[in-house]
Order: sequence, then C-alpha cells, then structure tokens
Amino acid sequence: MDFKTILKNIYTDVLQIKNLGEPASYIPELANVNPDKFGIHFCSLDGNHYGHGDNQEKFSCQSIIKVLSLCLAIKTDGVKIWKHVGVEPSGTPFNSLVQLEHEQGIPRNPFINAGAIVICDILLSQSDNHKEQFIEFVRQLAQNANIEYNPKIAASEKAHGYRNAALINMMKSFGNIENPIEAVLDFYYDICSIEMTCEELARTFLLFANKGCIPSTKKRVITTSQSKRINALMQGCGFYDEAGEFSFKVGLPGKSGVGGGIVAIHPGKYTVAVWSPRLNKKGNSYKGIQALEMLTTQSELSIF
Amino acid sequence: MDFKTILKNIYTDVLQIKNLGEPASYIPELANVNPDKFGIHFCSLDGNHYGHGDNQEKFSCQSIIKVLSLCLAIKTDGVKIWKHVGVEPSGTPFNSLVQLEHEQGIPRNPFINAGAIVICDILLSQSDNHKEQFIEFVRQLAQNANIEYNPKIAASEKAHGYRNAALINMMKSFGNIENPIEAVLDFYYDICSIEMTCEELARTFLLFANKGCIPSTKKRVITTSQSKRINALMQGCGFYDEAGEFSFKVGLPGKSGVGGGIVAIHPGKYTVAVWSPRLNKKGNSYKGIQALEMLTTQSELSIF
Amino acid sequence: MDFKTILKNIYTDVLQIKNLGEPASYIPELANVNPDKFGIHFCSLDGNHYGHGDNQEKFSCQSIIKVLSLCLAIKTDGVKIWKHVGVEPSGTPFNSLVQLEHEQGIPRNPFINAGAIVICDILLSQSDNHKEQFIEFVRQLAQNANIEYNPKIAASEKAHGYRNAALINMMKSFGNIENPIEAVLDFYYDICSIEMTCEELARTFLLFANKGCIPSTKKRVITTSQSKRINALMQGCGFYDEAGEFSFKVGLPGKSGVGGGIVAIHPGKYTVAVWSPRLNKKGNSYKGIQALEMLTTQSELSIF
Amino acid sequence: MDFKTILKNIYTDVLQIKNLGEPASYIPELANVNPDKFGIHFCSLDGNHYGHGDNQEKFSCQSIIKVLSLCLAIKTDGVKIWKHVGVEPSGTPFNSLVQLEHEQGIPRNPFINAGAIVICDILLSQSDNHKEQFIEFVRQLAQNANIEYNPKIAASEKAHGYRNAALINMMKSFGNIENPIEAVLDFYYDICSIEMTCEELARTFLLFANKGCIPSTKKRVITTSQSKRINALMQGCGFYDEAGEFSFKVGLPGKSGVGGGIVAIHPGKYTVAVWSPRLNKKGNSYKGIQALEMLTTQSELSIF
Repeated sequence: MDFKTILKNIYTDVLQIKNLGEPASYIPELANVNPDKFGIHFCSLDGNHYGHGDNQEKFSCQSIIKVLSLCLAIKTDGVKIWKHVGVEPSGTPFNSLVQLEHEQGIPRNPFINAGAIVICDILLSQSDNHKEQFIEFVRQLAQNANIEYNPKIAASEKAHGYRNAALINMMKSFGNIENPIEAVLDFYYDICSIEMTCEELARTFLLFANKGCIPSTKKRVITTSQSKRINALMQGCGFYDEAGEFSFKVGLPGKSGVGGGIVAIHPGKYTVAVWSPRLNKKGNSYKGIQALEMLTTQSELSIF
Repeated sequence: MDFKTILKNIYTDVLQIKNLGEPASYIPELANVNPDKFGIHFCSLDGNHYGHGDNQEKFSCQSIIKVLSLCLAIKTDGVKIWKHVGVEPSGTPFNSLVQLEHEQGIPRNPFINAGAIVICDILLSQSDNHKEQFIEFVRQLAQNANIEYNPKIAASEKAHGYRNAALINMMKSFGNIENPIEAVLDFYYDICSIEMTCEELARTFLLFANKGCIPSTKKRVITTSQSKRINALMQGCGFYDEAGEFSFKVGLPGKSGVGGGIVAIHPGKYTVAVWSPRLNKKGNSYKGIQALEMLTTQSELSIF
Repeated sequence: MDFKTILKNIYTDVLQIKNLGEPASYIPELANVNPDKFGIHFCSLDGNHYGHGDNQEKFSCQSIIKVLSLCLAIKTDGVKIWKHVGVEPSGTPFNSLVQLEHEQGIPRNPFINAGAIVICDILLSQSDNHKEQFIEFVRQLAQNANIEYNPKIAASEKAHGYRNAALINMMKSFGNIENPIEAVLDFYYDICSIEMTCEELARTFLLFANKGCIPSTKKRVITTSQSKRINALMQGCGFYDEAGEFSFKVGLPGKSGVGGGIVAIHPGKYTVAVWSPRLNKKGNSYKGIQALEMLTTQSELSIF
Repeated sequence: MDFKTILKNIYTDVLQIKNLGEPASYIPELANVNPDKFGIHFCSLDGNHYGHGDNQEKFSCQSIIKVLSLCLAIKTDGVKIWKHVGVEPSGTPFNSLVQLEHEQGIPRNPFINAGAIVICDILLSQSDNHKEQFIEFVRQLAQNANIEYNPKIAASEKAHGYRNAALINMMKSFGNIENPIEAVLDFYYDICSIEMTCEELARTFLLFANKGCIPSTKKRVITTSQSKRINALMQGCGFYDEAGEFSFKVGLPGKSGVGGGIVAIHPGKYTVAVWSPRLNKKGNSYKGIQALEMLTTQSELSIF
C-alpha cells in the first residue's frame, strides 16, 4: 500500500475513534483549544507530501521544540553540552527531582524539562541575541518566515512555572546553570510558545530524516553523526515516561508536546506530524499515538 | 567501504586499545576467564559472514539470553506477558528496587533481572518441560545442536544470588510470581549459564534482523510485529543504564551480558556479536562497545 | 487526679469511641480476633497496678517483642550490634527498601522489620540454644513462667513472609547476615508469635521504667545507660512512620504491634499496656493511641 | 555530683578533645569564625546558672531559631499550621526533595529547611509587621533587648540560597505557600541570622523547661501541651539526620544550628547551651554533642 492511501485510511479511521483524554489545562491558552481537532501531515524525502484534517492550523508546539534547541546547541558546540546534560532515559516523572539531586544537578537528557532548561542556558551563553537567533534558525529549517513566538502563552506558562523554577534553582545550586535564572526561564518559555501547523512541523524536521541536510536546499545543518544522535535521543527520551511504549508500538524516533502534537521520523524515508489535543495519562496525544501506530503497521515499515 | 574490510579494520584497531576495565568477578567461573580475549563475528542477511580473533570460542552468554527467553515467551503468548512486565527503560540501577516497590512488583522491562525472572516464571507455567524445551528452542534458532547449559556456572550464580532472591520474593509478595521461588530461580540461573561463540550468537540472532524468520530455513519463529517489538526493547533496555549511551553512539538495537558479550542487530541488514570480558563501570564490555561504534561510524549505517 | 481514677476514666471514655479501623488481616490468626476487644493495664514503680476490660486476655505481641530481643542482644554485646543496625528513624515505609539499598544493607533501626531480623541473626550467633534462651529471658523479665510462643501464628506468618524474605536476602547480599536465612527467619517469626496479656506486658517492661532493674526482685538486667538508650529508640522508632505523631501527642517512649497492642513507659514512674485490635492507617492501634493520649493529658505528666 | 561541678568538669575535658571537624564554609561570615571557640552555659529552673569559656560571645544561631519561629506560630494559631507541615522525622537529607514531591509539598516537620520556610510563610500571613514582631518576641523570651538580626549574614545566605529557592518553588507548585516567594525567603534568612550568646540562648529556651512559662516573670507564653509538643519535635527532629543518635547518646530534646550552637532542655529541670563551630559530618557541633553527652552521663539524669 502506498503512503498516500495509508494517510487517507488513517484519517478516516482516527475520526471514528472515541474522543478519550483531555487537553492540557494548566494554562488557559491550552485549555481553550478545541479538543477535537485532528490534523496529520506526511513529507517524504522524495518530495511527496500528503495532509488531512486540521493540518494547516497552527498549534502550540511546546516540548517538540526542544529537539530544535538541542539541534542548534549541538551545531554550535557538540562536545561541551554533554558535560551539562546526559543521554539516558529518565525513568518515571516521579523520579525527576530525585535523579537531579542524586546525579548532582546533571539532568538525564535534553528533553525532560530540566535538560531543556540547561540547553537554553547554553544557547544564552552562545549568543548575545539568542531569542532572535533561535527563531531565525527555526524559520530556516522550516523554509518559512511565518513562524513566531506566542508571547501570551510564554507569559502564562511563566506565571505557572513554580516547578520549573524549583528545577533550575536546584541545578544552579550544583553549579550547572551559568546565566541568571530569570533570563534562562524566560527564554525557555519563549521557545516552548512557538506555534506551527502539522505541515510546517513535518517540513521542519525533514533534516533529521536526511542525515542533517535540508532536502529542498541541500544545505547541511548538522553532521550525519549529529543527526543520528538526535534521532537516537528522540527514540529513547521523546515521550516522557512512555518512550518505551511508543518505541514498542510505533518503532520510530519522535517527540511529543503537551499541546497535542507529535513529530516522528523514519530516517532515510520520511517525517510525519500529527495533532490532536486530547492527551493520555502520560501526557502524550491519545489519537496522535494511535495514528502513528497505524502508519507503521499498515506500511510494515519501521526502523526495527 | 565493504563490511569485510570494516571488520578487519575494527579487529586491528581494537587490539591496539589499552586493556581497561575488569571482567566480572562475583563468581570464580567468570573471574578466571582470560580477560584479554577478543572476538567479533558478523553475519549479513545475504549470507556473508566474517569473523576475527576469538570468535570461535565459547563464553558465558549471561543476560544476552534474556532476549531469547523473551522471544519464546512472546511466541507462546504475546499478550498475557505484558500484564506481568513493562516495556520502559528502568532509569538507574539505584532505582531498581524502588521502582519494583513503587510499581507494585511489576518490573520495568524484561531485560532487567527482575523482568527476566518474571519471564522465566511465565515459561515455567507454559511448559512442564521448560528446561529441555528452552535449550531446544535456542538450538533451533542457532541451527546448531552443540549448545548447552553450564551447570557449574548456574550453581555458582545461585550460591551468590541473594539479590535476585530479594527481587523474586518482593515480586511474589505482590502476587507477580506464579511458581515456587526455588524452581523459577533455578531456571533463571540455567538460562544465564548457556555458552556460545560469537559466531553462534550472531547466527542465532539473525531472525531479529529478518522480521522474525530464520534466514537459512525461511522458517518463521515470531511475527514481523513481534520481531519489531523485541528490537525496540533491545534499543531501549539492552544495556542496563547505558542504553541511551549505546543508542547515541552506536545506533543499533542490541543486548549485552556480564560475560563480556554483546550482540547488535541492524534490521533488514545484519547481526554482529563481539566478546571481550573487561567491563566498563556500567557492566558492559569496554572494547565491545568501541568495536560496535567503529562499525556504524565506518559503515555510515545505523537505524537512525 | 490519681492514676487509679484516670485509668477508670479512660476505660469509660474509650468504650464510647466509635469502632474505626480494621484489625490486621494478612494472616487468619490475626483476622479472626474479636476486633472490639479493649484492655488496659497500668503498673507503677511503687507497686500499684490497675487494669480494666480485657486486660487479662492473651494477644499476639508481634513487634512489641522486638524491644525484648534488642534488650537481650544489648545485654550480651552492647557494642558490636551497632555495626549491623542504626539508631535513626526510618522515615516512611515507602523508603524501607530504598534505604536498605542506599545504606548498604544496614537497617535504620532495630524496630523496623529489617533491623529486628538483624537482631535475630545476632542472637543466633550468640547462642546455640537461642529459641529456648529467648523465651526464658522473657519469662524472667515478666516474672511469669506462663509465656509461650504460638507455633501456629509463627507458621502462618512464615507462609506470608515474602517481603521479609526479600529484606533478609538483600541484607545477606551486603554481608550483613551471618547465619542461614531460613534459620534467622524462623526465629524472627517465633519471637513475633509470643502472646501476653496487657498485665503481663506492663510488668515485663517495668525494667525500662526502672533504669534496667526488675523492680520486684531488684535484679539488674541491663545498665542504666542501656535502659536509657532503649527508651530513646522506642521514642524515635517505636511506631513505624507515626513515631513523631505519637511522641507529639503522647510524649512517652513506647512500642506498638500489629496485633493491636501498645506498651508505653514513663521512666522513673510507670508502664502501661493497652490492647485494641483495630488499627489506623499507619498500622497502630486506633483506640490504643487515644487511650494513651488521654493518660498523659489527664495526668499532665509526660517526659516533655 | 552537682551541676556546678559537672559543668566545670565538662569544660576542662572538652578543651582536651582534639579539634576535629570543620566549621560551615558555605558563606564567608561562618567560615571566618575562629573554629576553636568553645562556650557552655547552664540555667536551672531554680535560678542557678553556670557558664564557661566563650559563653558570653555572640554567634550565629541559624537553625536553633526555628524552634522560636515555630513557638510564635503555634502561639498564634496552634491548629492550622499542622495542615501545612508534619511532625515526623525526615529520614535522610538525601530524601528531602523526594519526600517533598512524594508528600505533595507538605514538609515532614518544622525544623527541616522546607518546614521552617512554611512556618515563615505562616508568620507573614499572621502579621503585617512580621520582622519587627518576631525580634520582639525573641527579646521577650530572652528578657533581653540586646538581640538583633545580622543583615550581612542574611544577605550572604540569600546569595547562596538556590536550594532553598528550589524547595519553596516546589512547595508553591503544590499550593503550600501563600505569600510571595521573595518575601518569605527574605524573612527566613532574617530569622536565621539572629545572633546570641550561650547564656542568652539558655535563658531564652527556659520556657520549654517550664511548661511554657518564662520562669523569671511567670508569664505564660504557650500552654503546657504546646510546650510538650515542641519538646517532642525537638527530640525527634532537632538534629538533621542525627536526631536518633543524639537522642540515643544524650537523651534530651534539643536543637542544633550550623553556626555550631546547640540548645538542650531537661523539662522540669534546666536548659543548657553549647557553642563550638567545628561540625561533624552530619552538620552538628562535634564538641557540642560530646559536652552534652558528658552532662547526662555524669548527672545520670535524662528524660529516659
């Protein structure tokens, strides 16, 4: 079966799945999204792309962006960052603060909150103009000037961010944060507030399917080895404490966000982005995971 | 560069790496192995195979066998087992007993000791003749009648097995062990005592590179989906708390054992087994990991 | 108000408290006790004693006996034991196995299960005749030959003792258990099975109110300093993770058991034993704690 | 032996103990104190008092003051505070953040940092003039107008207070902090900066030996029951994770501070304050604990 047909089937089937789960509700901007939205967009390296449903509607990328901030940090200094953050799965959310304390303020990986905050700190140290530099980097990957921070969401996140403040203070107490706490947290909330459509996300992530080059321009962003490593990190750490389950069921590297988006990558072949705001108990898009499971099951293709 | 040349290069290069690390010493049978042994063997799905060094010498497979016991349990009942064991990475060894207590006696995955013990319990319930049945299963996968348990190693492990006894008693207290503790532990130590050469291991694991079929006989052992899932579990959980690091550096699913062996799989392409008894601090073969990193770096091929 | 009047008041008041909580149900011998029994007995150092209700009925002492096994071990060797067990409160039950792993197999104190098992191991090493020796020691403290092990309860505990088996195997793996696991656990279940009445318990514990001497015979069992230390341990560790609450409300050293008994000591003044099988969520006698709170409130006397 | 003689003996003996341990060094104000200072002062309820060495020299009280902030909070509202903080020992320092997360932001007791911060938050809510009110309260207990905050120490603590900031943000994320984080932390550092001499401390704490009344004025500050409870909390939680050891060796309720001070109370009899800046590994005054152990051993009097 070709991917065009598979995408169509998935769209039809997902619409019939019962609407279980609830969207994130800790800030009004996420709580007020229509919970029954569903979009999917597929881009292959050979230039084909197919989309369905709400695939052209912007939504809050949230943690998905942590792959791009990691990518920029690695591009700038791919060695030093691994002194500040690890590459191992974190186990359970219950453990997060234990581990941070036990492991002397070095977060487990760059995709848990503590690790993404460390990456923001590194980006601050790398540039005097980090906020503008980062959005330009994302626009370049996306080949699209129409990508923006959402200051209202950033402000709302910040007002509810006591736990992130606890994490960064803990890391600062161990000497693992270089810049002022306030500035690092502001930047962290900025990047999480970026909005994209499914199509924009799928296009933006194509470099990870293409050994680090943007396919349309052939421009190399990171090395083959760096691209391999970022995919490996998504595979192990991209879905909070459901990474094993996603790997087991879907078998692709990917990253989810609390806004209900998921991007997955089949290296050498394609990227796919889905969006459905209702989340399961682990904080991942309920229908998004099911759509991706259908994709690798019907195509009989995964990295395994 | 072709794999034949790459294997040769790796062998030459690894011999020149300094002998760091120490072999496992908790039982005399492992402590007395010559620590400077090194073997590597590569088998591709197209029938080629290349080996170097001590690739024809038997060594103690230990935890590598846990992939095969899982495979047999999945083949017999691929649904029920997931009520008794999870599919998520376990975080740190420090956590192992915490998690087991916190998660009500359900081990994180089938490759940590607690999970492998649960799989043994399931195999006991599935067969009246589990010990003979299992070795026959391994011989069939290996296409080799010359594979045996080592009763001396099993007995030695058992005599030092207080921590495993703690784990199984804990799980029994939560109702997650069906059979008598003594019988389950005996079987667990039996399977860990199996000895194979690098070549035998590489051949035995070929079905996981071949969507669940033994390539030479075309016999299907497990479904494509089951094979995908076992590979996904190796990717996330195959290297104790160094799984992320291995995935990051090597980018292949694999499984290591405390005897110094590692098997890795490139689905659709090949398997490779290495053996070098000196272990790093995480309990994985020091030179084995380096050899595999050379393999995916020089071939510029990994699943990512 | 004199203690005779206070005891009478307490008895009257406790009878009117609603029957909340449930008795221990993990073994039939405890589950089948009449849950509404209530007894209290008070013994002062000046020779007065008063009792009410079911104060003459034998019940299962369970963890209360751990004070007496500690006492015998201290009497025989008051230095060596502190290499094998600590003197600090254990925090939460959730922590018990974490702590044991984190602290290298050395239990927090002699009153949590792991610590009491270590004390049993020490008593085994101290005597070839530990079982007979211990019951004789208890009879001597009680000045009463009519105190016995209950083999049926010991056997029932053993059949449900997987978690204790996990604890002792863990400690054995760290080298903190000298004797065979089976023998130590058997002795542990034996001592926990001893049965006494409230009156017998209150008399048995009088030495801890009397600087280590049995008041009726003036015989010294342990030194003043050893008696002080055992009381200090009861104060900090006598009530599982409710020790702080008991200290806060009652203000006396004491020890509870899952059979519903509690003994408390006012050094220099008196002992008191209560029995009511219904337990609160922390595993301590619901009415027993209330009776003791009335006692120190009405007498306006506590150690603080 | 009378207390006057005992105090003199202790002073002579302590001077001959080797100077082990180091003073707190995390802020210069504590690091620069002469580490070999030693003072002791004893006050009995009958009006006698004896002092030796540096007993008239001011030092930084630090955590000792947490008893007085708790006392003021209890005096104002002795019921509501127990919804915000517990009364149980905390186990190990390693656990502190785990427990705080596991127990939903409710600190274990009012003497660990998290708990003392909650008490400061409560005092802020109770008064518009909390800073002035508190120092007046301390002066009243001390019967001494010459007691002050040290703003330099408070500022220095604040500049190094990332871990306390982590704790309060964590509690705020669970809704257990009412006032602005900055204001609460400022007040917390203020109270910890108060300086007193051994004599002043011993006098200030006399109410806890006297059922809640200041002996010289007979003025009641708190009820008998409240005084009992504060003593019980000191007994269980006054010495970080060495509370059990202190109780075991000394057998009195007490509270230590990282400035090297310790106050202990024998209810109904006396208070005693010692000061020696060198700390043991648990953060308690090395010589201070030894002096107090001599006191209860030579007097053969403790609460047990």
